[in-house]
Amino acid sequence: MSKVTVAATQMACSWDRAANVARGERLIREAAASGAQVILLQELFETPYFCQEHSTRFFELAHELPGHPAVEHFRAVARELKVVLPVSLFERANNSYFNTVVMLDADGSVLGHYRKSHIPEGPGYHEKFYFSPGDTGFKVFETAYAKLGVAICWDQWFPECARAMALMGAEVLLYPTAIGSEPHDPSIDSSGHWQRTMQGHAAANVMPLVASNRIGTESGERGSMTFYGSSFIAGPTGEKVAEADRSSETVLSASFDLDQVRRYRHAWGVFRDRRPDLYYPLLSLDGRG
Amino acid sequence: MSKVTVAATQMACSWDRAANVARGERLIREAAASGAQVILLQELFETPYFCQEHSTRFFELAHELPGHPAVEHFRAVARELKVVLPVSLFERANNSYFNTVVMLDADGSVLGHYRKSHIPEGPGYHEKFYFSPGDTGFKVFETAYAKLGVAICWDQWFPECARAMALMGAEVLLYPTAIGSEPHDPSIDSSGHWQRTMQGHAAANVMPLVASNRIGTESGERGSMTFYGSSFIAGPTGEKVAEADRSSETVLSASFDLDQVRRYRHAWGVFRDRRPDLYYPLLSLDGRG
Repeated sequence: MSKVTVAATQMACSWDRAANVARGERLIREAAASGAQVILLQELFETPYFCQEHSTRFFELAHELPGHPAVEHFRAVARELKVVLPVSLFERANNSYFNTVVMLDADGSVLGHYRKSHIPEGPGYHEKFYFSPGDTGFKVFETAYAKLGVAICWDQWFPECARAMALMGAEVLLYPTAIGSEPHDPSIDSSGHWQRTMQGHAAANVMPLVASNRIGTESGERGSMTFYGSSFIAGPTGEKVAEADRSSETVLSASFDLDQVRRYRHAWGVFRDRRPDLYYPLLSLDGRG
Repeated sequence: MSKVTVAATQMACSWDRAANVARGERLIREAAASGAQVILLQELFETPYFCQEHSTRFFELAHELPGHPAVEHFRAVARELKVVLPVSLFERANNSYFNTVVMLDADGSVLGHYRKSHIPEGPGYHEKFYFSPGDTGFKVFETAYAKLGVAICWDQWFPECARAMALMGAEVLLYPTAIGSEPHDPSIDSSGHWQRTMQGHAAANVMPLVASNRIGTESGERGSMTFYGSSFIAGPTGEKVAEADRSSETVLSASFDLDQVRRYRHAWGVFRDRRPDLYYPLLSLDGRG
């Protein structure tokens, strides 16, 4: 069971929640039909990216995890197709709200959930208004096909998160995402920066990485944002092995021999030579401990 | 003093130590003549890469730091040209040996030294035979032109090291290097992996990065190694802004407005949103704390 085929998807989302779920399911079926075993949908695919604005009405979009409609829907899909599905969703938990991924194994069982640790806040990305910073810590799930580290969008900018998942045994890193234009400055196109940061995680941790991003233009009260797609799969030296364009609904896939990747990773020696005794500056915000 | 011009150099090295030092000085003068203020020579440029083999006679190449001939030589060059020079050298310290960089400021003064923290060991790269893992911790030097984080070769594969220097106030990351072919497996060309890992550090920490690597083929008792050059300068989104080929003696340079880079870095928000409370897995080797 050393060989695994992973897939990334990207799609546009409307305010028709059932249509978005159906579109996601269609992409999953397409990926599974071509042999994918681990299939990644993008972040918060059930709705438009509501964090584009501050609006209390959007808290109504969240659901408690046991019985979350997206989880229930995709459990049946995972079981039928025998695929592993990380499902990104808006979670309500008593008086708190989180940006969460639930990991569904290939038999449809729920392996657990991860709550996004790093929460952005800026023009067009008002996530600190909606989500508490996650309290689960980083998570690696032992699925039917691979040990999967999954983190969410803004997490992808943090080498600490990728490294922690690798140290915890991840064999593949997964990132559902929603990123695009910067409403305050149309001159910024962060897509290259975004890809290179994650290629760096793949390269430094010597393991494949899958990123699924949203496409399409979405309008809010204060303007509109265009999500730049560019979903990709990186190999264990950080090289891009598959990549989508900026605007097409797409399924990408790639296969990796995880035993071969592990042998290369261990022979390369970076995990042997780490110096945790010197890493204390990482445990502070200002590097002063 | 917000604008700074940095340069990378690459050259081949022989067993004529004086010739290597003279060649390094010539490249520094060439870089300074074109406006460079911070000029990076490659790792252990005074000699061939002796770690290609285990040989006790090579311990004789090391010198104590106060009075190290390379430091004395380049202090005068730094002062004359008003340039900052990180000088890579083989350091003896009583009964210990280190792979060390001494940071020379633009007035020729010694700002301090950093001892390589991560020490590789593998066919052709027998550094664990020669060097103790560094005991200085990561270092950032406040020079005349910029706050410089400097680490050495194998350190460049560790996101923890780059992040620590960034947290400690580095504005530019510098890596003198000696890397090339893998004698046990000629099919491995790690140059892309090597560049992408460091591009990831630049991207994740939103700051420029300079890597200077050796060129040329060097023969040892057990065969020969070819160093692949490919020295480069990355900008603050990890993009390559200058790059050398695999075999030419080269001086590369690039200019950055460090205030502008800092504003972009801070506006991007990654340092604001770090979660040190979740990073404890980084302080162990097996991710289990």
